[in-house]
Amino acid sequence: MNAWAKDFPAIPEGWHYLDTAATAQKPRQVIDAIERAYARDYATVHRGVYRRSADMTIAYEAARARVARFLNAASADEVVFVRGATEAINLVAQSWGVANLKAGDRILVSQLEHHSNIVPWQIIQDRTGVEIDVCPLTEDGKIDLDAAEAMLTEAHKLVAFAHVSNVLGSVLDAKRATELAHRVGAKILIDGCQAVPRIGADVQAIGCDFYVFSGHKLYGPTGIGALWAKGDILNAMPPWQGGGSMIDRVTFAKTTWAPAPQRFEAGTPNIVGALGLHAAIDYVEGIGLPLIHAHEAALVKAAREALGAINSVKLFGPADSAGIVSFAIEGVHPHDIGTILDEGGVAIRAGHHCAQPLMEHLDIPATARASFGIHNDEADVAALAKGIERVTRIFG
Amino acid sequence: MNAWAKDFPAIPEGWHYLDTAATAQKPRQVIDAIERAYARDYATVHRGVYRRSADMTIAYEAARARVARFLNAASADEVVFVRGATEAINLVAQSWGVANLKAGDRILVSQLEHHSNIVPWQIIQDRTGVEIDVCPLTEDGKIDLDAAEAMLTEAHKLVAFAHVSNVLGSVLDAKRATELAHRVGAKILIDGCQAVPRIGADVQAIGCDFYVFSGHKLYGPTGIGALWAKGDILNAMPPWQGGGSMIDRVTFAKTTWAPAPQRFEAGTPNIVGALGLHAAIDYVEGIGLPLIHAHEAALVKAAREALGAINSVKLFGPADSAGIVSFAIEGVHPHDIGTILDEGGVAIRAGHHCAQPLMEHLDIPATARASFGIHNDEADVAALAKGIERVTRIFG
Repeated sequence: MNAWAKDFPAIPEGWHYLDTAATAQKPRQVIDAIERAYARDYATVHRGVYRRSADMTIAYEAARARVARFLNAASADEVVFVRGATEAINLVAQSWGVANLKAGDRILVSQLEHHSNIVPWQIIQDRTGVEIDVCPLTEDGKIDLDAAEAMLTEAHKLVAFAHVSNVLGSVLDAKRATELAHRVGAKILIDGCQAVPRIGADVQAIGCDFYVFSGHKLYGPTGIGALWAKGDILNAMPPWQGGGSMIDRVTFAKTTWAPAPQRFEAGTPNIVGALGLHAAIDYVEGIGLPLIHAHEAALVKAAREALGAINSVKLFGPADSAGIVSFAIEGVHPHDIGTILDEGGVAIRAGHHCAQPLMEHLDIPATARASFGIHNDEADVAALAKGIERVTRIFG
Repeated sequence: MNAWAKDFPAIPEGWHYLDTAATAQKPRQVIDAIERAYARDYATVHRGVYRRSADMTIAYEAARARVARFLNAASADEVVFVRGATEAINLVAQSWGVANLKAGDRILVSQLEHHSNIVPWQIIQDRTGVEIDVCPLTEDGKIDLDAAEAMLTEAHKLVAFAHVSNVLGSVLDAKRATELAHRVGAKILIDGCQAVPRIGADVQAIGCDFYVFSGHKLYGPTGIGALWAKGDILNAMPPWQGGGSMIDRVTFAKTTWAPAPQRFEAGTPNIVGALGLHAAIDYVEGIGLPLIHAHEAALVKAAREALGAINSVKLFGPADSAGIVSFAIEGVHPHDIGTILDEGGVAIRAGHHCAQPLMEHLDIPATARASFGIHNDEADVAALAKGIERVTRIFG
C-alpha cells in the first residue's frame, strides 16, 4: 500500500482496484465532507431567509468557485453544475448546438470518442441538419491532429475531442486542437473526464470554448459534474431545462431567464454533490496533479512492461498513456479475463468502454482495461500481471 | 422533541426547522446508507465484470424496484432515475411532448403550479406550437376540478397538476383529475414532490400517466429523483440525452437505443443517490405515511389556530392542507418575518416559492411559509407562534 491508499476506506487490503477510469474510489476526506453536509450543515440554497440556508448557499457557491479555480476559469460564473460530463455535453448540444448549428454546418469528433461525445451530436442532427465528421487516429492511438488540420473547413462550427481517451489513455494536444478549430472559426469542446484526475486542465491556457468533466471520476460523489464555457458564449446560450431558480420572472404570458450560470441550473441542485466535489478537488490538488501524473505514468510503464512480456498479450494505445492500459489476449474474451482476474482480487473493466466506434477501428469487440488511481502501487501491477499469467495458463 | 426527532442529526435541540417543503432534513438511516455506499461498497454499475460492481448494480436496481413499490407501479422498468422532479418534467416535455404535441394541441396546467411544472411546457411551445391553458383555483386554494372539467376539450393532450401545492398544501383529487383528462383523451402528469413525503401515491389506483418526485424532499439525498411513466408510454418515447448506457449500438452511420428505462439514463447515474433514496423510502414507510400525514395534519391545525388567533395574520390555503401553511402579516414583508423568526431559531421560507403565477393570483409578492416534517412537534408550532407575536410587536 502506498501512503495515499490509507485514505480510501472502500479498498480493503488485498483488493486491487484498477477501474478508476470507470469511477474513482472516494477518499475519507470526501466521504466526511458529504457526512458533514447532511448531518450538520444541511439546508437548501438560494432561497432560505435563515442563516443555515445562507451558509449553505455560500458553501455551494464556494464549490463553484473551487471548480473555476481548478480549471483556471476567468470567473466562477462560467461554471455550471450538471449531473456529469454526459449531461454537460447534452446541454451544449441542445442549447448552444440547436441555437447555432444549421444545415450545411459540420462537427468534427474523433474516432476514439466516448459515446457521450458522439450520441448527443447525433441526437441534434435531425433538429439542425448538421453533419458529423470523424477524425482518424495515429498509429499509436492518438487523435491525429495533422488529419484534423487537413479536414477542418469553414463549414465546421464545432470540434469535440476527448482530452484523454478513456480506452487508450492517449493525451490530446488540447492547445493545438484549439488553435486548429479556431483557425476555421469553429468552437471546441473538450471532454476532460479522464484528464482532470490525471493531468488537469487550464482552460485559459488551452484557449478552448467548452470543457466538461464528471465529479465521480475525480474522486468526488456520483451525480455531480461541471460544464465550463467561456462567459460570453454561456451568457448567449438559451435555457435547456426549465424550472425553479433559472428564471427571472414567470408569467403565463411571458417568462424571462436568469443570467448564466443559474439559467442552466433548474430545480434544486445536487447541493451536497457540489460540496463533495469541492472536497475532492481539495484532495487531488493537496497531493498535486504533477505528482499524481508521474505516479500513474510509472504504473502504466510497469504494467505495459509486465503485460508486454507475456507473449499472447496485445497492448493498445501509446506508451505515454495517462493512467490507462487497454489490452487483449489472443483467443480469450476480455470478459473472461475480467472474471478470472476478479477471482484473484483484481478489478478491471472489460467491454467496449462506451466507445464502440473505437472498437470497430481496432477491429475487436472489446478490450480489457486496467486504469490507475492515486491509491495504486506496484503491488497492484504485480497482481494484475500474476492474474494475466493465470489467464494465459487456463486458456493456454 | 418527538420520538423521531432523534433520527435527525442536523437538527440541534432548540432549532425549529419548518422548511421541509423546500428540502427535508436527513435521518441518520439515510446518511448511514450513503456512508456505507462510499466507504464500503462503492463501484460503478452495469459495466464491471468484477463482483463489487455486480453487487452495486443489484443495489442500484433494487433502489429502482423500491421506488416502483413505493408508487405501486406495475414494473420497475417504469421508473427512470433523474436529478429531481424538475428534470423529470423536462424529460417528459422534451421527449414525450416534442414527439406528441403539435400546433392546435393544448396543455392544461393550474394556477398554483411550481415553476418546474410551467416553464418546461413554455420552453417546448416554440418547438411544438402547443398552447397552455390555466385552470383556476377554488376559493380555498385547491385546483378547481369543476372548472377543469368545463375547460378540457379534445384539443387537450396533456394535463399537468401538482398533487399537493408547495405553497398552500392543498391536495388534488388525483383520481378525478385523471378521469377528467382521460375522458378527453389527454394524458396526465402529476407532480408528486410534496405528496410523496406526506400522503404517498398509488399510481395504479390514480390511473395517471406520469408521476414525478424529488428524493431530497422525501428525506433522501440531493441530486436524485424519479420519473414514473406507464410502460407503454415510456417505451414509445424517444431518447432525450445521449451517451453511455442508453444505447444499443453506436456507429457513426446509425445509433440504436436501449429499451426504457435505460434509454433515459445516459451516463453514469447518481448511483449513491439512488441507494440513499432507497433508504429514505424505507425510513418513511417504516413509520408509515398514514401516521406521518396524521402527525403533520395535527401540526397544521395547531399552527393555523395559533397564527389565526393573531389579528394581523392572514392565512392562505385550505384548512385540510397537507403539512404546509402559508401566511402573511399585514404591513410586514415576508422576508422580514423570516429574518426575525430566524433570530429565534425558527427556520421558515419567505418568497414566491417558485410559484409566481400563484402569487399574482393571491395578489401578493410573497408569502411566509411554515412546512412540517416527521421530526416536528408542538414545540415547533409554539416557537413559530411566539416568533410571529414578536414580529407583530416589532412592526406593531
